[in-house]
Amino acid sequence: MASASSTFSLSKPFVPLSKPHHHHHASNHNSIHLSFFNPTSLSTLKPSLSASPRRRVDFRTTVRAAAVEVASEKTETALVDKSVNTIRFLAIDAVEKANSGHPGLPMGCAPMGHILYDEVMRYNPKNPYWFNRDRFVLSAGHGCMLQYALLHLAGYDSVQDEDLKSFRQWGSKTPGHPENFETTGVEVTTGPLGQGIANAVGLALAEKHLAARYNKPDLEIVDHYTYVILGDGCQMEGISNEACSIAAHWGLGKLIAFYDDNHISIDGDTDIAFTESVDTRFEGLGWHVIWVKNGNTGYDDIRAAIKEAKAVKDRPTLIKVTTTIGYGSPNKANSYSVHGSALGAKEVDATRKNLGWPYEPFHVPEDVKKHWSRHVPDGAALEAEWNAKFVEYEKKYKEEAAELKSIVTGELPAGWDKALPTYTPESSADATRNLSQQCLNALAKVLPGLLGGSADLASSNMTLLKMFGDFQKDTPEERNVRFGVREHGMGAICNGIALHSPGLIPYCATFFVFTDYMRAAIRISALCEAGVIYVMTHDSIGLGEDGPTHQPIEHLASFRAMPNILMLRPADGNETAGAYKVAVLNRKRPSILALSRQKLPQLPGTSIEGVEKGGYIISDNSSGNKPDVILIGTGSELEIAAKAGDELRKEGKTVRVVSFVSWELFDEQSDAYKESVLPSAVSARVSIEAGSTFGWGKIVGDKGKAIGIDRFGASAPAGKIYKEFGITVEAVIEAARAVC
Amino acid sequence: MASASSTFSLSKPFVPLSKPHHHHHASNHNSIHLSFFNPTSLSTLKPSLSASPRRRVDFRTTVRAAAVEVASEKTETALVDKSVNTIRFLAIDAVEKANSGHPGLPMGCAPMGHILYDEVMRYNPKNPYWFNRDRFVLSAGHGCMLQYALLHLAGYDSVQDEDLKSFRQWGSKTPGHPENFETTGVEVTTGPLGQGIANAVGLALAEKHLAARYNKPDLEIVDHYTYVILGDGCQMEGISNEACSIAAHWGLGKLIAFYDDNHISIDGDTDIAFTESVDTRFEGLGWHVIWVKNGNTGYDDIRAAIKEAKAVKDRPTLIKVTTTIGYGSPNKANSYSVHGSALGAKEVDATRKNLGWPYEPFHVPEDVKKHWSRHVPDGAALEAEWNAKFVEYEKKYKEEAAELKSIVTGELPAGWDKALPTYTPESSADATRNLSQQCLNALAKVLPGLLGGSADLASSNMTLLKMFGDFQKDTPEERNVRFGVREHGMGAICNGIALHSPGLIPYCATFFVFTDYMRAAIRISALCEAGVIYVMTHDSIGLGEDGPTHQPIEHLASFRAMPNILMLRPADGNETAGAYKVAVLNRKRPSILALSRQKLPQLPGTSIEGVEKGGYIISDNSSGNKPDVILIGTGSELEIAAKAGDELRKEGKTVRVVSFVSWELFDEQSDAYKESVLPSAVSARVSIEAGSTFGWGKIVGDKGKAIGIDRFGASAPAGKIYKEFGITVEAVIEAARAVC
Repeated sequence: MASASSTFSLSKPFVPLSKPHHHHHASNHNSIHLSFFNPTSLSTLKPSLSASPRRRVDFRTTVRAAAVEVASEKTETALVDKSVNTIRFLAIDAVEKANSGHPGLPMGCAPMGHILYDEVMRYNPKNPYWFNRDRFVLSAGHGCMLQYALLHLAGYDSVQDEDLKSFRQWGSKTPGHPENFETTGVEVTTGPLGQGIANAVGLALAEKHLAARYNKPDLEIVDHYTYVILGDGCQMEGISNEACSIAAHWGLGKLIAFYDDNHISIDGDTDIAFTESVDTRFEGLGWHVIWVKNGNTGYDDIRAAIKEAKAVKDRPTLIKVTTTIGYGSPNKANSYSVHGSALGAKEVDATRKNLGWPYEPFHVPEDVKKHWSRHVPDGAALEAEWNAKFVEYEKKYKEEAAELKSIVTGELPAGWDKALPTYTPESSADATRNLSQQCLNALAKVLPGLLGGSADLASSNMTLLKMFGDFQKDTPEERNVRFGVREHGMGAICNGIALHSPGLIPYCATFFVFTDYMRAAIRISALCEAGVIYVMTHDSIGLGEDGPTHQPIEHLASFRAMPNILMLRPADGNETAGAYKVAVLNRKRPSILALSRQKLPQLPGTSIEGVEKGGYIISDNSSGNKPDVILIGTGSELEIAAKAGDELRKEGKTVRVVSFVSWELFDEQSDAYKESVLPSAVSARVSIEAGSTFGWGKIVGDKGKAIGIDRFGASAPAGKIYKEFGITVEAVIEAARAVC
Repeated sequence: MASASSTFSLSKPFVPLSKPHHHHHASNHNSIHLSFFNPTSLSTLKPSLSASPRRRVDFRTTVRAAAVEVASEKTETALVDKSVNTIRFLAIDAVEKANSGHPGLPMGCAPMGHILYDEVMRYNPKNPYWFNRDRFVLSAGHGCMLQYALLHLAGYDSVQDEDLKSFRQWGSKTPGHPENFETTGVEVTTGPLGQGIANAVGLALAEKHLAARYNKPDLEIVDHYTYVILGDGCQMEGISNEACSIAAHWGLGKLIAFYDDNHISIDGDTDIAFTESVDTRFEGLGWHVIWVKNGNTGYDDIRAAIKEAKAVKDRPTLIKVTTTIGYGSPNKANSYSVHGSALGAKEVDATRKNLGWPYEPFHVPEDVKKHWSRHVPDGAALEAEWNAKFVEYEKKYKEEAAELKSIVTGELPAGWDKALPTYTPESSADATRNLSQQCLNALAKVLPGLLGGSADLASSNMTLLKMFGDFQKDTPEERNVRFGVREHGMGAICNGIALHSPGLIPYCATFFVFTDYMRAAIRISALCEAGVIYVMTHDSIGLGEDGPTHQPIEHLASFRAMPNILMLRPADGNETAGAYKVAVLNRKRPSILALSRQKLPQLPGTSIEGVEKGGYIISDNSSGNKPDVILIGTGSELEIAAKAGDELRKEGKTVRVVSFVSWELFDEQSDAYKESVLPSAVSARVSIEAGSTFGWGKIVGDKGKAIGIDRFGASAPAGKIYKEFGITVEAVIEAARAVC
């Protein structure tokens, strides 16, 4: 039944060139089960809509008339109570054992958590990467025991009994905040507040985009919801307002956010700092808003709210769920003391009594276990049903199926990198931001998962894909994303897009200096292994008149110091193409491309292959690996180094000119290669870069000299600033003479 | 009439220890005229309320009945038109001459600009630092030609005719975005969007706080408004939502924000990314909202809106002013092309024709000049009036007057630093975050301008001033500020507080890793010379279980690379006290204190004086400045270096242990001092710091070894992570043996 082309199965996603950075944990990347097609399960299960295992949701929200239904409902409610309390006590017990963590949120949010994972969401516990699963994001990441408890009950392999008992311990799968790279079933990495809701916007964008591109009238192949729980802290963060504003603009109707309205944050009652009307603000943003007044026990209200949210298809829904933080704790509920500390043995006992919970720590009652046990077969059936649909899709829509498969698996189309442009020294001078646009437009033709845009600087960042229109509410199939002036939200949305499917390659853009606005999101890209491409133009004083508020100085150094991210500063067309090759290949490591506003010549000696090594020789008139001096430049200053080299050679010196486009990539090369570029015997080294010299000491060594800018910039034409700041050929020549 | 104590006059503010960083411009700091009391002007002017030069505002908004008034009004309106067009063309001409800049906003906002500076605001052009002036912030900083034109017309010395003609040129007083450190009359540094509105919240907070502390029923000595113009870009940024949410919570009734609602941003019509209802959102935030539908010519509507805004005293007001970007340009108005580029000679001509402007570039018509000329004497009178009031205040309220004077001038009370606690090795071990709280509480008693708080982590950051209550809407005299989970807004609000008065010393706090959320504001602290104290706790993997999302790695390096900011990482009580001494003295350079969550011992050899030098020897058993090895540590790892030193000495080695608490301060010491701490002849150096090794290469040299963490952290108890990551005494000993 399955065609040959659809039986492929990947034991892990296609992820080359990634630098591992989580040394202490056994990596789970090797065990990722990404296949979306499993022929064996297909033969044993008969997928059909009528057998859909999530029909209970609808059942619960229909009008109930018969007495027998009421009786069964009562039994059900008792079981739901029990399940909800199981979640509460798994959280209480894990935090207690670790003597560290946040019990308050899980205790308050257990009802919505139960309803989501047990009644509403469609997922396959044994393949957490099943493409068409509903996504869940705990934006209030400190409450992660809620999610761990739910994953455990639902049958995910990642959270076993022993994992719950090693919460927040070295090497466990249950770290202090949700981390997708540690725990399968966790979609994104949260904890820093507000990131999760923005990630969720990215997940919902990805769904809407892929659905628009690949769904057919007869075959809805992309179709899932994105659920998120966020708290008061998330609501106060500016990033959440940014993301929620643009989510409504895009009409992300399948994004449903639960706002855990518990009125408590770390410093106490939210009345001390947060008295706005969140409801009114969200109405202003364009969301549909529902208020569930009793989130502690009002199961049916929560169910009805979800039903209503699903019925509103043209915009996202915020369900404000008023809960009691630490619900059930007789002495600590509704206080900040239950937010981020273990309850303590005495209060745990009191809570057990109060909620009528006679069990040992970490106990899951048999009937609760049994109740949840259906999710493993049901999930397998859901995936099988979808797989069958995909087989049909592939038969009818061969081209689209191939594209979608590439997006689902992350396998890049063969020969994709041949699309990248190359240049000769005769090619016309151009700004690397313009050369970047040539690369983006070339790649968009061969990479179906490439999409992105700018934070309202598309015409300055040069990020428009010319063959596509704008991703908008009514044109979601397009691939130019207009983020508005929302850098922080943009970065976190792109993290969500990247983590939706391995083959989605989001890029986003602003001026390099404004990475300061989005640094928290960029750091999470690096941590959560989201291969976002950051297209950062206007990368130095070379932008000129806009002045010091717009001129990056310390930014290159600040990202070179950040783990698991590639900081690339290409010098010309070939290096820009090389930077894109590297960025696309690194699907589990984000890349930042620092690009010039000003025109730069196409330099002899630059190459894509050179960029892949991070640092390489672009010209040399020495022999025996013993130049008189090594000149090192990056980006727009490589030209200055090359010119200085020419001058010094006229004086009879042997000079090597090195492009140092990515420190991280160079660092990963063999010692022999490194020695061939920067021989330890040659201490006469001069570097030049229009940025902070911080960090260059290690490259140029004790006897070398680093030319850079260790002050803020200035407002004037670029050439004038370069001259006044001493970023000149003359300065390099002088320094070279001094160190030789 | 003036008492002896009130005749002091400062030619410049009291600003010790500041590292100058704007080398290229003649510093204007030496010419700051900060005195708020000028006995000579007092003798020639009779201040009285009936002579208030701003009564015209009230006149304009009263009902007009008599024909003669209508006639004069027509004349007046013609003159206002002329003044408004003068502003427009000064902007057009300056941008045209520079062939760079943003003419669109000034052309659209000229009417509100005119009304503010000509009719509403109270200021003294010849003393831009007069304490009780109304503050104006152009949050949409790219439109700076609007402000330069207004300062020019109003008679500020900082913007002369030649300054307008050297817009955006090297060494001019009219840089590409408003910079308070370049142009007197500019209150804060804007350009990066959203910062200005948050600065304005800080300015308004300062006014409300000082008014509550110092105003008396008979003498209102603090009394000014804060006006701000923000655009669509500012509105999209998350920081503005953060700041505006808390501004309403605090009830900042004297904050009046004009939202330049022109529907155009760089990428085109705001419809492509910004379709929320700003009005509704601000109502949700708790603001009073007014809509002026015709901002282009509706002068009376603007005036009426300001009057209404002033009447609403319990909350801030947003005046949405619908304007046409580039108003007057027949072919470019209402398009993105007029946002950020010169109009071009042809369109400038067309605009001159369209608006009936026959004048040469940069011409200010005589009647306009004459009309504005009253602001110099009127401003002097306003200040004189206030000075007279202050003389009276000083007589009646001696103590309060002395405090207020200290806040106004920035002169620190004599001997203030004696309040700082000191410790001996016998003092009990403690976390530097707790020691920080001891310092803050000691300083609050002697520094009347110290106020601040945390972004919802007060009980973790240990930032509460125990003798004060919370600064809140109804208790604005208190000094504990509750920022909520709004790090970015917090930083920018503190910039506003710091720039309100030289003696206000704002501090703010969160976890060190969350500097990522507020980095754009911190960078502007550094650039705009705002001496904010950043109290950043949980400064390493030492925070333990919260895991990698919460553990800083690259943050120390990232701030060491930033110009004009002090990155301090104290190791114990004495060093924490030293860090505070440095931070308080540096009123024009912000300081970041990285503080531990975990307990640290009080080390022998640490001192306040040592911290002031940035790096210093805490123990040494060598002689002749030739130790076998130098061990260098910071913060919580200084203890590890000290212990390793003890062990190595047992082996017979001569070991120097150096605390490297602030790289920047060490860098500023004499070469002789540096050589006495890190002799160039000693290449055997080992550094240890629980953060990125990036940058340490320069300190330890080619033959040294830097121990640190070049990967993300982990969720586990702190001791376990230290051990697994090799941040141990054993690792230092091993490295020392290897390099000796």
